Amino acid sequence: MDRKEKPMETHVVGIDIGGTKLATVVADSTGQLLSKVRKPTLAERGPEYALQLLFDMVRETIEQAGLEQRSISAIGVSCGGPLDTKTGIVYSPPNLPGWDALPLKAQLESEFQIPVTIENDANASALAEFRFGGGRGYKAVLYMTMSTGIGGGIVINGEIYHGANDSAGEVGHQILLPDGPLCGCGKRGCLEALCSGPAIALRAQDTIRKQLANGKASATRLLNLANNSIENVKSEHVLQAARTGDALALQLVQETAYYMGWGIANLVNILNPDIVLLGTIAIAAGDLLLNPIRKTVSELAMTRPAEAVKIAPAQLGDALGDLAAIALVV
Amino acid sequence: MDRKEKPMETHVVGIDIGGTKLATVVADSTGQLLSKVRKPTLAERGPEYALQLLFDMVRETIEQAGLEQRSISAIGVSCGGPLDTKTGIVYSPPNLPGWDALPLKAQLESEFQIPVTIENDANASALAEFRFGGGRGYKAVLYMTMSTGIGGGIVINGEIYHGANDSAGEVGHQILLPDGPLCGCGKRGCLEALCSGPAIALRAQDTIRKQLANGKASATRLLNLANNSIENVKSEHVLQAARTGDALALQLVQETAYYMGWGIANLVNILNPDIVLLGTIAIAAGDLLLNPIRKTVSELAMTRPAEAVKIAPAQLGDALGDLAAIALVV
Repeated sequence: MDRKEKPMETHVVGIDIGGTKLATVVADSTGQLLSKVRKPTLAERGPEYALQLLFDMVRETIEQAGLEQRSISAIGVSCGGPLDTKTGIVYSPPNLPGWDALPLKAQLESEFQIPVTIENDANASALAEFRFGGGRGYKAVLYMTMSTGIGGGIVINGEIYHGANDSAGEVGHQILLPDGPLCGCGKRGCLEALCSGPAIALRAQDTIRKQLANGKASATRLLNLANNSIENVKSEHVLQAARTGDALALQLVQETAYYMGWGIANLVNILNPDIVLLGTIAIAAGDLLLNPIRKTVSELAMTRPAEAVKIAPAQLGDALGDLAAIALVV
Repeated sequence: MDRKEKPMETHVVGIDIGGTKLATVVADSTGQLLSKVRKPTLAERGPEYALQLLFDMVRETIEQAGLEQRSISAIGVSCGGPLDTKTGIVYSPPNLPGWDALPLKAQLESEFQIPVTIENDANASALAEFRFGGGRGYKAVLYMTMSTGIGGGIVINGEIYHGANDSAGEVGHQILLPDGPLCGCGKRGCLEALCSGPAIALRAQDTIRKQLANGKASATRLLNLANNSIENVKSEHVLQAARTGDALALQLVQETAYYMGWGIANLVNILNPDIVLLGTIAIAAGDLLLNPIRKTVSELAMTRPAEAVKIAPAQLGDALGDLAAIALVV
């Protein structure tokens, strides 16, 4: 950048739009955060409410950073997909009811007269891990969320791989068991329907019910952690019990690792990534989950791509959402 | 290209190395073939024999084209992998015994003093389909062989996607049935172990055996085509019988289409290609196989990437091997 033409230090705004919270941040050109505002999305109030709130939050965040709007060079937006990165239109994300063909980019550009880049959250997170986190220095990076759902983003030579219509990287919807559990997408046996947080919880609940029906007592610890209510059992309880050596929980972790490893082995054969970075649940579980995943990948993937790949927890943690939006514009 | 600096029309040599035949061609800078020489590989004689033969064939092909070696600007080599495109070393392809860590690029460059580009055959074929065939004009092209094995090549924005160590695109080794039939790669239930030519033949033979054991006569037509020997039944017989409406053969085609469709649906979700081009068996079978594949993909893939993708037979047919080598250098 030519400092004579742009004497003022430029800054960027990042907007992270989730189903439960909105966050706006201001960062300098190196990605360093200067200010942040967080508000609940109140998704049930629809997109007009959220947009008006975002407009206010952006102004507040710029002010908090001690800046004026004219020193903001770009706005990056990380939002649930599907969306079209070229037109900037958002198409009915499952967690944002009413956001149907919403021209998000156009509305933000019209409000602030600043160029806006929008990207689905998994892709933006993958780029953030490449720019600031565990993917630095690698030419083929696969990032996989592992929380409410299993999303994915592919970064090749430092750029998000979008595919034909911004739908690439739906790694959680590769089907492993066509007769398996129903997925949120309407198909059966997707990786997401086996290994997302809610999917792990459902498998745990089913196993506990079967054990109780068979008069086995080994479900006790998991049940205790969930206040003795089967419906309360969550993936967090499974990890917690597994860490204390609970046999049933360990078996559930092994099963999760097998499905994840199988899905990742397929991805390793197809994409030959340098690194696969796994989010949320994998970060919380650490090697307890990652080691059996690595073992399964080395057993099921082809030798050459298996030798090339590292499987690691994502590194940005709680900062991921903010940096995802920022990574799009710095 | 500046004609003042390069007054002479440049030509290229293409080398196609297979387990049963070697082919060398000379083409002009538009990919138009001027001459071709074909010889058996005699793979059992090892790499030294094949290399010496290739050296002679290259000279013969240049001569046949009425050219001199100094008018050849580059040599492209399409060869079974695994291989390293940067170092140009070939690592023990299954169909080329003794080609262990063979410095193919270095040996050809040393012999001819011309820059050599080597590439695995599936990737080179994908590039040829992008340059000259069914992939023209698309930014995300997936080519899948469907013959002795199921290989794949991914071309993004006109360039082969190599991944971390030239192993990307092993789409035939995504595992669909971990307890399924043994694959040549040593794992079980890979797409290749279900839908390659030999895999279709094995499934046909198994089904016939079961039908005969149950006293059913419906295996008659397939058996007749194979000279009444179960071991002789090949994928070609299945297609031939299916075309005449044979119920058993049609069932085998449906089953093949289901597995192919499942595998392609996963690839569509992951790669979001504009087009998937299918080789050999899919070309021979046409819509008999392609239509049920398309139906399965539309049922199992996510809506947006499924809407974006075309599934079509590869277009270059018998010219593919020659054009694969040429596509690397024109």
